[in-house]
Amino acid sequence: MAMKCVLMNSFIKNLALKNHDKCAAAITRFISTQKSASSKLFFLPASPSAKLLQPTTTALTATRFQKMDSKNFSTSGPQPSNLTFRQLLDYATFTYTYILGDNASKKAIIIDPVLERVERDAKLLKELQFDLIYALNTHMHADHITGSGELGRIFQNCKSVISKHTSAQAQKYIDDGDVIEFGKFKLECLSTPGHTDGCVSYLLRDHGLVFTGDALFVRGCGRTDFQQGIPQLLYNSVHKKLFSLPDHFLIYPGHDYNGNMSSTVWEEKTYNPRLTKPFEEFKKIMDNLNLPKPKLIDVAVPGNMVDGLLDKK
Amino acid sequence: MAMKCVLMNSFIKNLALKNHDKCAAAITRFISTQKSASSKLFFLPASPSAKLLQPTTTALTATRFQKMDSKNFSTSGPQPSNLTFRQLLDYATFTYTYILGDNASKKAIIIDPVLERVERDAKLLKELQFDLIYALNTHMHADHITGSGELGRIFQNCKSVISKHTSAQAQKYIDDGDVIEFGKFKLECLSTPGHTDGCVSYLLRDHGLVFTGDALFVRGCGRTDFQQGIPQLLYNSVHKKLFSLPDHFLIYPGHDYNGNMSSTVWEEKTYNPRLTKPFEEFKKIMDNLNLPKPKLIDVAVPGNMVDGLLDKK
Repeated sequence: MAMKCVLMNSFIKNLALKNHDKCAAAITRFISTQKSASSKLFFLPASPSAKLLQPTTTALTATRFQKMDSKNFSTSGPQPSNLTFRQLLDYATFTYTYILGDNASKKAIIIDPVLERVERDAKLLKELQFDLIYALNTHMHADHITGSGELGRIFQNCKSVISKHTSAQAQKYIDDGDVIEFGKFKLECLSTPGHTDGCVSYLLRDHGLVFTGDALFVRGCGRTDFQQGIPQLLYNSVHKKLFSLPDHFLIYPGHDYNGNMSSTVWEEKTYNPRLTKPFEEFKKIMDNLNLPKPKLIDVAVPGNMVDGLLDKK
Repeated sequence: MAMKCVLMNSFIKNLALKNHDKCAAAITRFISTQKSASSKLFFLPASPSAKLLQPTTTALTATRFQKMDSKNFSTSGPQPSNLTFRQLLDYATFTYTYILGDNASKKAIIIDPVLERVERDAKLLKELQFDLIYALNTHMHADHITGSGELGRIFQNCKSVISKHTSAQAQKYIDDGDVIEFGKFKLECLSTPGHTDGCVSYLLRDHGLVFTGDALFVRGCGRTDFQQGIPQLLYNSVHKKLFSLPDHFLIYPGHDYNGNMSSTVWEEKTYNPRLTKPFEEFKKIMDNLNLPKPKLIDVAVPGNMVDGLLDKK
């Protein structure tokens, strides 16, 4: 306790003196005296001279902050934070793929990889020195073939993942409430059916990020006119599962056709032209979209049934 | 000082008891007793139960944390953070546009808006309740017409901005070292010529974000074979101005043709296939790209000379 007082006095004194590096050092050492505090409080130095600034969607835990040095920095990649986050786009199908990596353990996951972009994604993962352990699908896609199976051939520890409420092959099946762990991070599986019956959203709750697949787009949502699509189910999924998240949570969709990359729960609750409507009106909209059949559905669905491993068909 | 001791004791006690909400409250109140500390130290509550979690690229300052309540939250939009950050894409020209907004003052800027996407961008800015005060160009583009002039017609406080080392019309000209302020945020202008002689990168230093325009792409860079492009200048700009930034700073480029949205200084210093080479080799690469003339150059450059206000040509 005496040491704690010394450290807190140093913190207070240096804060008053605006000596923020010393201030940060004191609070870091203080935290290190607390056995279990590290996972619960984040401390970020904000001085431009501090090398531990936090530039990403992630927060720097006290533990990480404490351990950070030049060696650790270089081995854990470029970002002095526990989480690496990347959004990637497949221009051909307007599909977003997401990489989430734990910089400490170097374990990573990928959400909705696209078969034709596996080479790009694998290269990036290797450059960032990640070991891919899960390739997750939000659902069985109708517009592109998943890269999850192929990634499992490149990364030996990688398991493909999809909802148990699909007829697709995968190495791990998930259900509502299941948790996918990568390093210290926990990704919650939220069952959000309606576009298909096996649609899942993935939630990184403590970072306020939700990956909604085709359940919810920026100012839109997935169609409900094939593959067990049911407007009532989708409406309930979005309202009960996604709109009940905190307003500021960032939504990362499965696609966007207008150049938007993200939104928030608040924005979609306020501005989504379909899902802000009463259900009957929503249903009318969804039943009258008159969209053409997806170009690749006859290739994509059989391909996704076998996890994108076309030589296994 | 007595109050500070009480608060720090409360902090220490609650940290030991793992009562992190009370702990956060104590440290916040402590910070509020420090007149100038708020701009230098960030405190983030990490408990899932805390409603002030930080989901974006931004950090929650102690000041903001202290002031946060449901009213403040709703008026400042969806994100309980000081900064709103959005990346947007023009699919036609693979151009990235960026919106940065101060949630407290509701002042926002936009970087590299595209004329054909002005309607989309203006709609989003209005939905997010921002007052656009600057529309910045990283340079005079050859592949698309800027939306900066048109945005000035929609947002009456908006000034278009470009380097003084161009022949383009704008309402504000900047030079190396100038600072663009929006609310409490300061964007530094780094002169990074070489692709054109008026290329500028914009740096939000305390968030570790740099918007590099066509000076530096993800694993690439802008061409140097027209509009005063000079390989030596570009090489120096990247090495001296951009690669000297901290390794973990996030790079947001002006374009990407492979579906990448960001990189880091570390990644480009390590993996950029052109700029990791010695200069002579870089020059050889740049001199032998044999790229076709940009499709729209004969429309874009004259259009950008008049800030995209084509009726003024």
